[in-house]
Amino acid sequence: MPEAVALVAHSGGPTPVINASLGGVIERARQHRRIGKLYGARFGIDGILREDFIDLFAQSERKLAAVSRAPSSALGTSRRRITQKDGERLLRVFRAHNVRQFFYTGGNGSMITACEIAELARQSGYELQVIGIPKTIDNDLAETDHSPGYASAARFFACAVRDLGGDNRALPGQVEFVEVLGRHAGWIVAATALARQEPDDAPHLLYLPEIPLPLDQLLQDVNSVFRRLGRCVVAICEGQLDERGEAFGADVRPGSRGQLAMNLGHRLSLLTAQKLKLKTRSEKPGLLARASLAFPSQLDWDEARLCGQAAVDAAENGKSGVMVTLVRGPGPGYSAATACAPLEKVACGEKRFPAEWRHPAGGDVAPAFFDYAAPLVGSIERYERLK
Amino acid sequence: MPEAVALVAHSGGPTPVINASLGGVIERARQHRRIGKLYGARFGIDGILREDFIDLFAQSERKLAAVSRAPSSALGTSRRRITQKDGERLLRVFRAHNVRQFFYTGGNGSMITACEIAELARQSGYELQVIGIPKTIDNDLAETDHSPGYASAARFFACAVRDLGGDNRALPGQVEFVEVLGRHAGWIVAATALARQEPDDAPHLLYLPEIPLPLDQLLQDVNSVFRRLGRCVVAICEGQLDERGEAFGADVRPGSRGQLAMNLGHRLSLLTAQKLKLKTRSEKPGLLARASLAFPSQLDWDEARLCGQAAVDAAENGKSGVMVTLVRGPGPGYSAATACAPLEKVACGEKRFPAEWRHPAGGDVAPAFFDYAAPLVGSIERYERLK
Repeated sequence: MPEAVALVAHSGGPTPVINASLGGVIERARQHRRIGKLYGARFGIDGILREDFIDLFAQSERKLAAVSRAPSSALGTSRRRITQKDGERLLRVFRAHNVRQFFYTGGNGSMITACEIAELARQSGYELQVIGIPKTIDNDLAETDHSPGYASAARFFACAVRDLGGDNRALPGQVEFVEVLGRHAGWIVAATALARQEPDDAPHLLYLPEIPLPLDQLLQDVNSVFRRLGRCVVAICEGQLDERGEAFGADVRPGSRGQLAMNLGHRLSLLTAQKLKLKTRSEKPGLLARASLAFPSQLDWDEARLCGQAAVDAAENGKSGVMVTLVRGPGPGYSAATACAPLEKVACGEKRFPAEWRHPAGGDVAPAFFDYAAPLVGSIERYERLK
Repeated sequence: MPEAVALVAHSGGPTPVINASLGGVIERARQHRRIGKLYGARFGIDGILREDFIDLFAQSERKLAAVSRAPSSALGTSRRRITQKDGERLLRVFRAHNVRQFFYTGGNGSMITACEIAELARQSGYELQVIGIPKTIDNDLAETDHSPGYASAARFFACAVRDLGGDNRALPGQVEFVEVLGRHAGWIVAATALARQEPDDAPHLLYLPEIPLPLDQLLQDVNSVFRRLGRCVVAICEGQLDERGEAFGADVRPGSRGQLAMNLGHRLSLLTAQKLKLKTRSEKPGLLARASLAFPSQLDWDEARLCGQAAVDAAENGKSGVMVTLVRGPGPGYSAATACAPLEKVACGEKRFPAEWRHPAGGDVAPAFFDYAAPLVGSIERYERLK
């Protein structure tokens, strides 16, 4: 019988801090005597099926420290969902390499896969511990206060809106749409509100995709801001739909929950130019927000690493079928600790943007959201202005 | 007769370092005894017409130092071209405030305006020194080796392509279009080549808008890269046209030289998905590249400041009707000094991307471009990878 092996794999889109979680796993696994070998799967499930592994204990400390600071996924990742056949093959690979601990880093869909793998192992009597490590910029994972990756993407967009707001202020007479990631969840777009430091700062309008947005309302809001300030910056989530559930005529691709627009900012910019006869533009930084470490949230990085470490601890404590979660301490002041939640509860849940954090008047968030998000995102540096 | 006044104004789009040039003007003007008052016009020509001025000597040193480090235009800027009536009004305002030195910070179009103002003053016998300060991310100003603003925008996009390349490598199976600023000039899109550090790094394809790009050629190039690597990142300039001079069916708005696409990356992403049956995406960081100081080029900042100082020196030396230029020293090693060129020569010229810096095979730049651009853009940090 070969030595017992622990295996870590990534799933879904990379984040700026997914490698910090990987670093946390490696670091803690080295400290535990029971783990003799730690493999990383190249390109997630695909790599496991191909037996394409990296021996992570063979990497130098210097390299691992540098990798854990890099954005994107150092192992490579995959969006593959497993078929029955895949599942059988996975178990054969696990048996062949004597994989006894499986750390799976991902979001909602990935935790469903983790559940399935745990169940397959149980059914065939193969002893395997499955531990989920949370990762999603969309912040919609259930059972955890927030997910590693969210704060950095939120920070990226808050800084982007600050900067585009500065441009719009310096060269007014234009309406600027900033298309924001987050799929159908408002967590990231809401965080652009953190860019505001004075009442007339961008974003002048931000919409939560949880609430349908009639085009007429958008146009009325934009017109009102433009009449007042002579400029306007709108933060719009890629998953925003109108009152008929349509993406304003944008090109769409199928998403996890209905269609996801590919060019929503541009589409709204065209419609606004046509209907209001205003000069408009749109920007779509898109995946840069998950691929760039230009605006790191140090807290996010620290917590991502912590979640990797906690996953190994959970396995060492005999746990299985759980995902590591972040639990916020009681205030005042921010603190968080890790815990574990059953994978089933995560897999069938979804962290929705609380209705009470929506601004009653629409086009904004309520102040309560700031208490939640500000400590995660960190302070947004303000650029000095002439008066 | 009131004290003689010097006036500085911004024109056209902001850049990450336009405030460094402003800082250079203020700093040097303070050192010269002859300048008793330095005004900044709010929102360019519009501000002059409205007599909306800021007394720049009244600002604290601390504030000015901080402002000169901020992106966007601290004075505010405008794209206004002057009419005959505007010109007459400008001269009346200049006379009323005894403005005798006029520093105008902008690109090609702005230098035409500067010429016109100098000529109007000459015709009406009003003694006025007009000095242009170069500023354009597009780098197409004639008579100067390069323009302040270019290096920072180029650096932004080189880093963006590096980061999106990392994402595309980690989650392959997709073609990623990155839409790049630069209007109809290839200077910025060419600089994304600086993101490559290994042969299979992004950008796998980059196109210079000076060369028409048949859609068939693009598709063939993308297909070839995708077959080889299983992924592909394409850097495409917003002003790229096909062999018929069309923007591939993208939505366009009138530009200074023909139409400028508003959604070219998205359009090419759709066409590629349709024709090659590949998964595609597009990102458009757009104005973030001129509005953000996330990836500063320190050299760019230093040279922008230098140009502001040199403009005041030129005025003190009795010059007028000139724009400050940057002259590169003979190698080896990078050095540059400032000089002056007649505004007329700048106004009717245009710095074109040299034909010999285009890659003969297409879809890339020739190595000679790197000697020009690398010192300006600075080294692009490489993120560590697992092997």
